Amino acid sequence: MPKSPWTADPAPLLFVGAGFELSGVDPDATPGFHGDKQDGERELEAVAPEVAGLQERLYAESRAGGVRRVLLILQAMDTAGKGGVIRHVVGEIDPQGTKVYGFKKPTPEELSHDFLWRVRAQVPGPGIVGVFDRSHYEDVLIGRVRQLAPPEEIEKRYRRITDFENELSAGGTTIVKVMLHISPDEQKARLAARLDREDKYWKYNPGDLDERALWPEYQEAYQIALERTSTSVAPWFVVPANHKWYARVAVQRLLLDALSRLDPAWPAATFDIAAEKKRLAAS
Amino acid sequence: MPKSPWTADPAPLLFVGAGFELSGVDPDATPGFHGDKQDGERELEAVAPEVAGLQERLYAESRAGGVRRVLLILQAMDTAGKGGVIRHVVGEIDPQGTKVYGFKKPTPEELSHDFLWRVRAQVPGPGIVGVFDRSHYEDVLIGRVRQLAPPEEIEKRYRRITDFENELSAGGTTIVKVMLHISPDEQKARLAARLDREDKYWKYNPGDLDERALWPEYQEAYQIALERTSTSVAPWFVVPANHKWYARVAVQRLLLDALSRLDPAWPAATFDIAAEKKRLAAS
Repeated sequence: MPKSPWTADPAPLLFVGAGFELSGVDPDATPGFHGDKQDGERELEAVAPEVAGLQERLYAESRAGGVRRVLLILQAMDTAGKGGVIRHVVGEIDPQGTKVYGFKKPTPEELSHDFLWRVRAQVPGPGIVGVFDRSHYEDVLIGRVRQLAPPEEIEKRYRRITDFENELSAGGTTIVKVMLHISPDEQKARLAARLDREDKYWKYNPGDLDERALWPEYQEAYQIALERTSTSVAPWFVVPANHKWYARVAVQRLLLDALSRLDPAWPAATFDIAAEKKRLAAS
Repeated sequence: MPKSPWTADPAPLLFVGAGFELSGVDPDATPGFHGDKQDGERELEAVAPEVAGLQERLYAESRAGGVRRVLLILQAMDTAGKGGVIRHVVGEIDPQGTKVYGFKKPTPEELSHDFLWRVRAQVPGPGIVGVFDRSHYEDVLIGRVRQLAPPEEIEKRYRRITDFENELSAGGTTIVKVMLHISPDEQKARLAARLDREDKYWKYNPGDLDERALWPEYQEAYQIALERTSTSVAPWFVVPANHKWYARVAVQRLLLDALSRLDPAWPAATFDIAAEKKRLAAS
């Protein structure tokens, strides 16, 4: 068994606690990890079966009546790598045990309801690892920056969000919230790459540059959201993401931590094993 | 590049055409494949990126307005390996591009609607590879065997199903229907294994033996469903599944065929590439 490249548990290093300043986070850093891209990719592959195995146990628990589940919330500026995290980290779990939902610009019907309405509908079921690719946080991020709602409504949403997440937590949902943090220069390079490759054009949207122009406003909106909604039951983690391999392995570790703390056990048989063996033999 | 272990395209060998007899299919066979378990696993791994790549193109196409999508319908007797196919074949595709739905015993609300009501709600969106783990075919399988509806209603359903599938096809859905075919002895061995392992108890249900007792009735119901609903736009394939590795690699090949025939292309840029490069450089 090779030595773990983790020199420290990254969770406390990435956790958004008292006095957190987003501007103080270096997007190039790799907190807690000693190694390079190759080490990161090796670690990702080595840990994947552990995460998948824990999810399977959680699913088995749910079949016996358990209500616990995990919800990973991903937020980030464009190109930060949410898709890659989902593909490489969540993609290693049995697809029968995951539920990925991408929140797009709200439809007219969604807008006619409270902002949490469409979110409630996508909460994962028991035993499932759910992923929100964007989430209700858009309503205090682009919502704030673009003034999509009156300021007093935006102000109320932070509390509405923590109430909602407390309710989910009380109902058995372990919430892990991750902001993937890149630098403006890194975003520029990644957008340029999309403009250079025929197989990437579809990922590019001219509107992305309009949002990019509001970088400082978005960082401020993130700072406010992070400090007001990082709670003990629904903590935020800011993951430096200029190195894609680090972002992936760090989110995998946060997911592993969450599942390990749940420590799901195989449920006991709810039938008489010996009797069923006899029935089967006679069948 | 090693020689393909496929000596013949398995699709025509597995296809349910005129004169098909389920009783004539050997569950131990490995049609079209020359090799053993190790060759099968190697092939599965080698072809996975091709399937994932084609799905990504199909997704890109949908972002540019395309409506095409794929629906894999899996039916089988208990323990035949649907879950393993989903984990090992579908699990190699980006989870953002797949949608797996398991149909359980209908709820009272579902029963209050037409039998296709709950099915329509789970049809995959554009660009997605959807998987039905069980499906509307339950309504002519257990529905027929257990007489869950009057015989004349069951009789009508075959036509209702082909109409429904024709409609899906006309709307851009490529349908691939697979019955995983195991022998009663193989099922007995797999059920016995579930009774022998603490981590498998949760998969065992005493009711499974009640269904097992009706094996001939189920085979008859499958025969009728297969011959009445295998159409050119929604063909059935019966995949011998006593060898799990064969079932997986065969379903992968059917999925690859379906995606290859769609031959999705990267969409052209919908913006002025040079102009966007300039805007980006100035940002």
